[in-house]
Formats: sequence, C-alpha cells, structure tokens
Amino acid sequence: MEAEINEQPAILRRLRADGSDAIGALSGELARRDIRFVLLAARGTSDHAALYAKYLAEVQLGLPAGLVSPSSMTVYGARPDLTGALFIAVSQSGGSPDLVESVATARAGGATTVAVTNNVGSELAAAAEFVVDIRAGLERAVAATKTYTAELLALYLLLMPLSPSEIDVGERSASLADAAEQTLAGVQDVATAAARYRFADRLITTARGYSYPTAREAALKLMETAYVGAHAFSGADLLHGPMAIVDTTVPVIAVVTPGAGGAAMQPVVTALRARNADLLVVCGGSVSADSDDGRQLTLRVADEGVPEELLPIVEILPLQQLALHLALSRGGDPDAPRGLNKVTSTW
Amino acid sequence: MEAEINEQPAILRRLRADGSDAIGALSGELARRDIRFVLLAARGTSDHAALYAKYLAEVQLGLPAGLVSPSSMTVYGARPDLTGALFIAVSQSGGSPDLVESVATARAGGATTVAVTNNVGSELAAAAEFVVDIRAGLERAVAATKTYTAELLALYLLLMPLSPSEIDVGERSASLADAAEQTLAGVQDVATAAARYRFADRLITTARGYSYPTAREAALKLMETAYVGAHAFSGADLLHGPMAIVDTTVPVIAVVTPGAGGAAMQPVVTALRARNADLLVVCGGSVSADSDDGRQLTLRVADEGVPEELLPIVEILPLQQLALHLALSRGGDPDAPRGLNKVTSTW
Repeated sequence: MEAEINEQPAILRRLRADGSDAIGALSGELARRDIRFVLLAARGTSDHAALYAKYLAEVQLGLPAGLVSPSSMTVYGARPDLTGALFIAVSQSGGSPDLVESVATARAGGATTVAVTNNVGSELAAAAEFVVDIRAGLERAVAATKTYTAELLALYLLLMPLSPSEIDVGERSASLADAAEQTLAGVQDVATAAARYRFADRLITTARGYSYPTAREAALKLMETAYVGAHAFSGADLLHGPMAIVDTTVPVIAVVTPGAGGAAMQPVVTALRARNADLLVVCGGSVSADSDDGRQLTLRVADEGVPEELLPIVEILPLQQLALHLALSRGGDPDAPRGLNKVTSTW
Repeated sequence: MEAEINEQPAILRRLRADGSDAIGALSGELARRDIRFVLLAARGTSDHAALYAKYLAEVQLGLPAGLVSPSSMTVYGARPDLTGALFIAVSQSGGSPDLVESVATARAGGATTVAVTNNVGSELAAAAEFVVDIRAGLERAVAATKTYTAELLALYLLLMPLSPSEIDVGERSASLADAAEQTLAGVQDVATAAARYRFADRLITTARGYSYPTAREAALKLMETAYVGAHAFSGADLLHGPMAIVDTTVPVIAVVTPGAGGAAMQPVVTALRARNADLLVVCGGSVSADSDDGRQLTLRVADEGVPEELLPIVEILPLQQLALHLALSRGGDPDAPRGLNKVTSTW
C-alpha cells in the first residue's frame, strides 16, 4: 500500500502524457452524440470516483447526473429506456458481475456506455461500447489507492472536454502531478495525526461539493485498513441529524478546499467548533483554517496551480497516508485487511 | 416521538383515504408530460424517502433516476438543461433554502417540479409547480418518524400510476395500515434488542433494494436519538470494503425483506455469519431467517398482503421503536436531541 501511494505522482504524469490522446478522442466521439444525462455505476472506492464524476457532470457540463443502483437492474430486472444517457461504469478490476450486467443492460437500453478500468481485458471492458484505460499498473494492495486517483484524472480528462466552456484539460492539469508529489512529501504531519487517533474507535469525515468524494474515500480507507468506524457525511447532511453523534470523543476530519466547496464548509466547521469537536482540517496552503484553541490539527496539501475541481486528487493523498500509518500503528496489515479480497463479486 | 410513532397507522389510512384523489390527479397530469428521467432532492430523513422513490422510478417505471447534489446548483451555480426531467423535492418542513433554490433552478431549467411536503404553505411548495401534501399533521419531535412513512406512501401513490404495467395503487396498499398497526403492537421484541445494544458504541445497518432506505433511515434515527455511531451500507457495498470493520463487538442490523431484495441479502448474511457478527434480522413473517447459534435476534414485521415495494413503510417501524427505547434507556431525550433543531437550514 505504501509503495502504491508513492507511485501516484508518476501515474498521474503518465496518464496525462500517454493517455490523453486516446481519452480525448473518446471525448470527441461522445461530443457528437446527443447526451442528455449521465449515469454512473460503481462499487467501493470506484463509487467515490463516480461521485466525483457526478459533480463534474452537474457543475461543469450542466448535465443531470445520477449514481445508478445496480440492484435495480440485477436484482429487480429493470430494463430502462436509456436513450440520451451516457452510462459510465468505473471499476479497477472490471470483474464484478453486477457492474458487467448493468453495462450490458444500459447498452441494450440505448445508452452510450463507457468502462473506466485498470483492466482493459476485463469482462466489463468487453461489455461496454468504449473503454478508458486508467493505466495505473497492477494494484496489489487490497485497499485501492493509485487506481482511485487515476480514475479521478481519467474521468476528468474524459468529461471536461464536453463542457460548454472551452477548457484546455492539459493546461488545467499541468501542475497536478507536482502538487501530488509535494503533498506526499509532507508526511510528517500525517504521523502526528495518526498518533492522535491511535485509540479512536469512531471518526467522522466531512466535506462538500467536489471534496465530498474525498471524505467518503478517506472514511472507506480508514475502515478497510485501520478498522476505525469512520463515517462520511456531506457537510450539509451532517447538520441535518448526524451532528448529534459529534462530541469531544469522536474526532472529525473536515476537508476545506480553497474555492466554493470550502466556503460552503465554513458554517459546518463553525457548528463543529461550537460542539467542541476534535478537528483535523485538510486544506490548501491558501486557506485560513487555523484555530488557536489547541483542539485542531491542520494538514496542508500543495494546491498551487491546481484548480478546485482537480484538488480531490491531491487532498486524498495525506488521508491515504493517515489510513496506512494508523493501520500499521494498530498492528494491522493494510495490504491484506481482514475479511476482504482484492476483487469483490456482487450480484 | 413515541406518540408520533404510534400515530403512523392512522396517518397511512388517512393519506390513502383522503389524499389519493389529489395525488392521483397529479399522477395523471405527469403522465401527460414526456418524462424521460427522475431527479430527487432532499436532506436528512427525507433523503431516505427520496432514495426509496429512486428505486420505484428505476424498477417500476423503467426510468433512470438520480439524487441530485443540491450544492451543484447552490454552491457552484450549475444551471442544467432539465427538459424531460421530473424533479421531486422532498421535505417535511419545506423550509431549507438549498432545496427551495434547487427547485427554482430546476423549474427554470425546464423540469416538471413537485414538492412533497408536510407544509403546503412553505417556500418549497411555492417554488414548485405542483405540491403533494403528505397530511401527517404537525410533527413536534426533532427525530422525524410519521413524516417519513407518510412521504414514502405519498411518493408511492404519486409514482406508481406512471408504471407501464396497470397498477391499482389503492388495491396494492389496502393492507398497509393494518400491517403497520400489527407491527407496532409487537413492541416486546424491540425492548429485548434495545437492552442488547444498551452499551453498543457502534452499529451497522444493511439491506438491499427497496429496503436499503430502511437501513439508512434506521441508522439516522439511532444516531440522532441514541447517539450510536450507526452506519448504513447497501449489502453489496458492505462486501466491497467496510466488511473489514465488522467483528463480534459491532452489532449488525440486517433488513431481509421477503422478495428479491431479501434474496439478494442472503450472501451478505452468510458473510456476516462467517465473521461471527452479532446479528439482528428484520424480516417478514414468511422469511426463514432464524439461526440456532444464539448470536441472532429476529424482529418480525407483519407483511401479510403487503407487496415488497411497500414493505419499507412497515419495516422501519420497529427500528424507530428501537431508537426510541435505546435513547430513553441511555437517558437521552429523543424529542429534543442534542445539537439539532427541527428545521435545519443549509445553503
């Protein structure tokens, strides 16, 4: 897991350099179709990449977007009319039967289907009309890290050219790999945070907008590897009920991005401070998020030159490191967590 | 909260008797529009009613459906083209600014907009083209119970007539209120479960398909009222990672409905048993879910004459009671949980 975390800057660089042409050509093909809405299907870590793509589609493309419930098709046999739909399945392995069946059903229902995967030889890739290769190389650790950030970047490169505004994805992503590299180098703070959570049984992660997938993925990593009861909430949803479980014994990790999503998190951070919550704020260098009450840690990511919609690729990195450190300090094996296999088959 | 839980059979009866005509007329109006997909917007408890409606739309109507992220519109200013969309906002109070703005944006973008609410005088009702009154009467407890089940039934009565199969919603829901009444009368078993969880710090709820919203709503009730770190997973997602946090110290509540959703839960229950999980199975009278290993409790709901897609209205009842009992036994005040107000304003 540690090696794969550290591989990420190189993978991002390679995907931009070697993958952009093929993905750009596919974007061009999609632009010629009359796409009215975007549907995404995924499980686990890839579901968080799909959630990221949902925000991109809604905000950048102005298209309605939704995460499909594969069980509607696989368990209940739904056969929807998907004319005008772009149906994207995201899966590292391309091996889960429910996703393969969803893609086949969507394609039969008239959708334009794309598989975003690390295995272009998979059944999922064969079922979809188009394939995006995330080029992350073989992932050995059960807890996915490098395939997550590669999925995010691949989805970005695929979808952003469909935006009505003229966007040069190459230019906008130019600083990304460097920012990832600098962020990974700041590992010292992560060790401090891991030490603080050594005996935490539960934990809450929260964010809004583009960074909400980061909160979800961080919670999953902490569950999978360190067996913490980590629970992710959108900042807005946290205020609608779950805030009741926050007290001084449940630490909260808040991702406060520079930009609109981070600004929308301010009322949430204020409410958390009012409840005397133990806070870890993940933010960019330009965000003022410090607190002098001694109850807050801050993890700064390198964000120079990285636009808000690409920051999720950087923000998750220290949280992957945190999960790794915490797992090791608790005597776990993050490469082979209990109860899990690398490829999970669900129907 | 207790009084409002017990009011539910009467509210379901009244909504069927007095609300069906108005809702049926609206369904007729919607059927005359060219609806290509369904979008739902909601927060908190109502978000789980929206999730239920998503399954109905996907499975029963054969329409793609998605839960919108209000922040795309309210934080990032997305202005999607929603021609062909049915946009349903679900809110007990009709008061949250982000939902009001989402509905206005959706309406301006060409969607057919419907507010499903307990307050027909609310800003949300005014913003939408159509309003469905869930007729639950004033809800005083902060933890929503009766408005949740009324929202589910209202959404059912609204959407099912749009199904390509000829469905008599009156006939299919005829046994519902009686089943709810019988289920609430079986309160004894709930007290046993509440006693078992007296000192539980974390808890997992899980289900698939129509009952997945039940798992989500049960977790929220347990968080809001009893301050348990309750975490809901779809059965399929649980297998993709979070299974690692399940051990003998984290109890699991599994909703195993009669029908396809419950059948799809069997591999999940098997995996949980293999991990020696402490299980509470919520199921209908006709489901064989017993275990002789002494590690399992079973809560049976009355399901006679109730079709699978209406069972979520019955299954949540003992779980609302469980949250209430557990909150009281821990010295909490379920009518006024810490850190929460009845109407939550988010932007």
